[in-house]
Amino acid sequence: MKYSFYDDYSEGVAPELLDYIASNNTDQQRGYCTDDYCVLASERIRAAFDMHSADVHYLPNGTVANVVGLVSMLKAYEGVISVKSGHINTHEAGALEATGHKILWVDSQDGKLNPELIEKAYASYEDEHTVRPKVVYITQPSELGTLYSLDELRAVVDSARSKGMYIYMDGARLAMALASPLTDIRMKDYGCIGIDMFYIGGTKNGGLYGEAMVILNKDLKSDFRYHIKQRGALMAKSRFMGQQFARFFDEDDLYMRLAVNATSSATKLAQGLHGLGVEITENGTNQLFPVLHNDAITRLSEQYGFYIWEKISDTQSRIRLVTSWATSELAVDELLSDLTGILAEGE
Amino acid sequence: MKYSFYDDYSEGVAPELLDYIASNNTDQQRGYCTDDYCVLASERIRAAFDMHSADVHYLPNGTVANVVGLVSMLKAYEGVISVKSGHINTHEAGALEATGHKILWVDSQDGKLNPELIEKAYASYEDEHTVRPKVVYITQPSELGTLYSLDELRAVVDSARSKGMYIYMDGARLAMALASPLTDIRMKDYGCIGIDMFYIGGTKNGGLYGEAMVILNKDLKSDFRYHIKQRGALMAKSRFMGQQFARFFDEDDLYMRLAVNATSSATKLAQGLHGLGVEITENGTNQLFPVLHNDAITRLSEQYGFYIWEKISDTQSRIRLVTSWATSELAVDELLSDLTGILAEGE
Amino acid sequence: MKYSFYDDYSEGVAPELLDYIASNNTDQQRGYCTDDYCVLASERIRAAFDMHSADVHYLPNGTVANVVGLVSMLKAYEGVISVKSGHINTHEAGALEATGHKILWVDSQDGKLNPELIEKAYASYEDEHTVRPKVVYITQPSELGTLYSLDELRAVVDSARSKGMYIYMDGARLAMALASPLTDIRMKDYGCIGIDMFYIGGTKNGGLYGEAMVILNKDLKSDFRYHIKQRGALMAKSRFMGQQFARFFDEDDLYMRLAVNATSSATKLAQGLHGLGVEITENGTNQLFPVLHNDAITRLSEQYGFYIWEKISDTQSRIRLVTSWATSELAVDELLSDLTGILAEGE
Amino acid sequence: MKYSFYDDYSEGVAPELLDYIASNNTDQQRGYCTDDYCVLASERIRAAFDMHSADVHYLPNGTVANVVGLVSMLKAYEGVISVKSGHINTHEAGALEATGHKILWVDSQDGKLNPELIEKAYASYEDEHTVRPKVVYITQPSELGTLYSLDELRAVVDSARSKGMYIYMDGARLAMALASPLTDIRMKDYGCIGIDMFYIGGTKNGGLYGEAMVILNKDLKSDFRYHIKQRGALMAKSRFMGQQFARFFDEDDLYMRLAVNATSSATKLAQGLHGLGVEITENGTNQLFPVLHNDAITRLSEQYGFYIWEKISDTQSRIRLVTSWATSELAVDELLSDLTGILAEGE
Repeated sequence: MKYSFYDDYSEGVAPELLDYIASNNTDQQRGYCTDDYCVLASERIRAAFDMHSADVHYLPNGTVANVVGLVSMLKAYEGVISVKSGHINTHEAGALEATGHKILWVDSQDGKLNPELIEKAYASYEDEHTVRPKVVYITQPSELGTLYSLDELRAVVDSARSKGMYIYMDGARLAMALASPLTDIRMKDYGCIGIDMFYIGGTKNGGLYGEAMVILNKDLKSDFRYHIKQRGALMAKSRFMGQQFARFFDEDDLYMRLAVNATSSATKLAQGLHGLGVEITENGTNQLFPVLHNDAITRLSEQYGFYIWEKISDTQSRIRLVTSWATSELAVDELLSDLTGILAEGE
Repeated sequence: MKYSFYDDYSEGVAPELLDYIASNNTDQQRGYCTDDYCVLASERIRAAFDMHSADVHYLPNGTVANVVGLVSMLKAYEGVISVKSGHINTHEAGALEATGHKILWVDSQDGKLNPELIEKAYASYEDEHTVRPKVVYITQPSELGTLYSLDELRAVVDSARSKGMYIYMDGARLAMALASPLTDIRMKDYGCIGIDMFYIGGTKNGGLYGEAMVILNKDLKSDFRYHIKQRGALMAKSRFMGQQFARFFDEDDLYMRLAVNATSSATKLAQGLHGLGVEITENGTNQLFPVLHNDAITRLSEQYGFYIWEKISDTQSRIRLVTSWATSELAVDELLSDLTGILAEGE
Repeated sequence: MKYSFYDDYSEGVAPELLDYIASNNTDQQRGYCTDDYCVLASERIRAAFDMHSADVHYLPNGTVANVVGLVSMLKAYEGVISVKSGHINTHEAGALEATGHKILWVDSQDGKLNPELIEKAYASYEDEHTVRPKVVYITQPSELGTLYSLDELRAVVDSARSKGMYIYMDGARLAMALASPLTDIRMKDYGCIGIDMFYIGGTKNGGLYGEAMVILNKDLKSDFRYHIKQRGALMAKSRFMGQQFARFFDEDDLYMRLAVNATSSATKLAQGLHGLGVEITENGTNQLFPVLHNDAITRLSEQYGFYIWEKISDTQSRIRLVTSWATSELAVDELLSDLTGILAEGE
Repeated sequence: MKYSFYDDYSEGVAPELLDYIASNNTDQQRGYCTDDYCVLASERIRAAFDMHSADVHYLPNGTVANVVGLVSMLKAYEGVISVKSGHINTHEAGALEATGHKILWVDSQDGKLNPELIEKAYASYEDEHTVRPKVVYITQPSELGTLYSLDELRAVVDSARSKGMYIYMDGARLAMALASPLTDIRMKDYGCIGIDMFYIGGTKNGGLYGEAMVILNKDLKSDFRYHIKQRGALMAKSRFMGQQFARFFDEDDLYMRLAVNATSSATKLAQGLHGLGVEITENGTNQLFPVLHNDAITRLSEQYGFYIWEKISDTQSRIRLVTSWATSELAVDELLSDLTGILAEGE
């Protein structure tokens, strides 16, 4: 296989992160996220996002971040509103339900929530016979690669607030939203728009592992470490997560530079595909969903890795191509070149 | 502070591991423990422990390894027998109970189980009104630094088996047991003695993070990945765990060499303390529990990090000193020298 | 209020049951469903349903019956397929999720499952990243008052079986299905069609409390009492549940006679409403859903109790009228007479 | 068997309760504990216990009452302090752990907690690595039949309060404590001593089923019905529980009269046994634990039902004899007479 466009975790670790770890390896540190590097990383995250009273915690991966974050916001009989395609609803093996909570999902064409959908999901709530919705779960960008605009996000926040619900944002790929030309939400907006809790993904933006959970609502801060520990997510040698995030948010904007490579590679790939007459919607993130003839898909898959996303017709399917911090121009060019050949033969 | 003897996770990562990761960073790999490095690591672990049909999985830390391992062995109404000081019973924030299972604990002077104690714990079981014991949880070495001998371990296994229970072994510090002169259990014994599942600790023996779970009982193999995912412990970029364990168990026996540094440092420190007239029991692992006068403890704590373990009398306490793969001869010598001075002044 | 048509649990207890309890009150009995009356009731149930090797257990209410039954069929990472309107999905306050299991629901116009819908729900299952469907949950009659025919039920069973799933049937109102002219499933069919577990409702057919759980699949029998006890549903003085079900299924067919009063009252009411020109679908059970003008609803609600089910238009709504074992001809006649007057005035 | 002294739930229902149900059976009532009888019962309970702002709820049995009550007081990572012999710790099949919470138990000779034992249990709490104790669970009378005095109960309450913990009291046999000459706590004390929540047992004092949960702490009131429903304990036809408790606490003090029969029967039996030279401690409740020669036990068990409680020596064992609201003088006299004969033969 020439190159995998399967996902954004097929690559190794960004060399800058590894260098930082190697250069800061001989000191002794306290564990469990009380080390100097976690402290430094949290300072830098607070500064970068302009949210000076936020608490920041470090968790090993996105699924457990979602579990810990959501559980910390819920009483035993409360549930979470999500779109059907939400990661917690589809690809976390029932991890949230395993902690006792129901997901109250609604279908959404574009993978995003809006006040109407929130209203619809909330309407299932009557009294003690039904689950009480307490958290609105959103993902930026969504599982479908779409992005909330500032106005859209504000509308979701207002809708949730008006019903006494919290807002939790899954930021597994937040880097790509930050690096996208197709949303007007800036880094500093996330801290002040009314989100109660969100996490900043590390794994999918070149990290070894680790996500940074940001708690903005002070009511949710006090016992968060108990939840982390109880769900098996308190890492003893937390220094490595601290080092990664301290390096991500150092002066040279590594976090953004890595993300920009992912999104600009996607943009270039999208434009190339469009030039080849392929049906594609550019969504501004690092996931592309072009439609190809099944024969072309078969040929392309001999040299490139990607998922077939959905059947469009008997002869056509939508595939998913994911770029990342590590995607080279060469890989994009080669795929476009090879596909040009495949399509030419197919005519 | 000159040096911390707090624990075995205050240090960074063994340079050999970091080098291996850096040298194998540019390829693309499948995720979720299906990458080539996890495959390689598992082959090497199976070979090292001489257990050729074992399944091996990689989990981010010890608490979640215990949760996933134990949950996979239990029906909803079944529980786990453990000593009171068992890590799952004392320092995992109720993580196992959070999955719905009771720990049926018994007190043990030396931190180890034996057939009599298992019998005592099992006796609480009557019928559907009580929790049914299904797993015997042991730790090698125990939380108190003691070690099972081969005969002791066999007796525990036989006792559990005779009652239809599984045996699960927490190996957070298994490296130190393997490197200890004070137990006759060899690496190859663990695979054939009748243990159903155990994990090989990485974090406490110089790793960045990650533990290797070994499943020996074939009845427990089929759906283990579902449990890992459901508990938020399936790491996307598993390659780094695979690389660590592949390197640990490479031809040059890195895993054992790191552990030997920990245990031999402890031996040297124990002998030095004994020479100074300090009350100490050498237990053969990397945890020492000397008794010192409270004044000496105060003075020593100005330069060294360690935990006060328990009060012995109004004037004396037991402290815990932990050595590791990274403890230098210099650190041991300095502590002994400084303590010599402190004790001399105290007279 | 002249009469409540709110539901089938507004009434007291059928006098025959109370008489039986009063006449058998002075003996001493073992508890926890081992008493002579539970034994007798189980024999009579097995005979009535012609399922001679079934296990029968007694639980205090329908919600906990569903929880215990479903939990007993599921591993930690498995889930349940249901229609959206399923009682477990809408009106049990997340009781099943509270035990850790996800409900994989699909929308259904008529409140029933069929092979296509089961297929659709099952399609969300991929691998360890998704919840594995293991039980198909159906209700006879459904929450919408509709009924499975024998062929429909066979198709559902076959579909579930073909995917390795169990079938669980919620029979809160099974009595009304048995007494309905609109399904061809007879009592003796339920035991041999391939259902793995179902319960026979007592509360909604004139009981004080209590439901009889029937286990047909022998793989699910062995530890069922552990699940009952663990979920707080093992009643100490089980004799009263045993007495109720022994009396229900005594020679004089009390269980059927009570149910027939409910369904024939509904039939009479439906025919009367139809005669008044009211839009109504007769479904053969004890729940009617007529559509009335909102003004008429307001007037009717001054004298009768019922729920407004859904808005049909700006001027019309659907209401729910429920009859029961205790509904008298007089109550039906009075409602029809009063409504005649209301409708006449409304013209 | 002449008579069973196994337990206090072998009998039927007190005739006065059945009469009340039969006499109030033809009205229609709202369900789910909103019926008129539940309202009346709660008023009478509040008056009897002199606690005018208490909330009262009705639950089907003691195990689920404990689960619902305790869960409502706990955050996900909090636990419950209990004596080892506490019902929740020994005979509820891990029902509390099944909801995710650990029981932090301490051994107690007399089955009661006191400030020293609470202190000891609390000492296991350190930080987020350990379970945080939040509720102190006590039983009056205890599982061993012992009783708290007013001073003892005050000391327990003060100890819990001083550590920010709640007090929950299991009153499965509270009736017998109220009817006992051996404690100075009166009915009206329970409402004002500082207990946050407790339940008044119905089942063991002549009821059909049902326990009345009293919430005194206003912080715990608001969402209690959600917890009841989520744990499958909200009974649709709650009127029968309401009727039982309305009758228990009607003007003629039925609740106390039934309990007095149980305790006075026990007193008479204890005095008779003492007169026969049998080793027995009178504890003032309805459970007696005499020590008999094993041969006598064998002979006695041919005519009477009782549990063998513990082995005392190779030739002697302690048995448990339980009296109840239904125990007749005749039964006590017969047992004493038969035992006299048995002991005479044994000499």
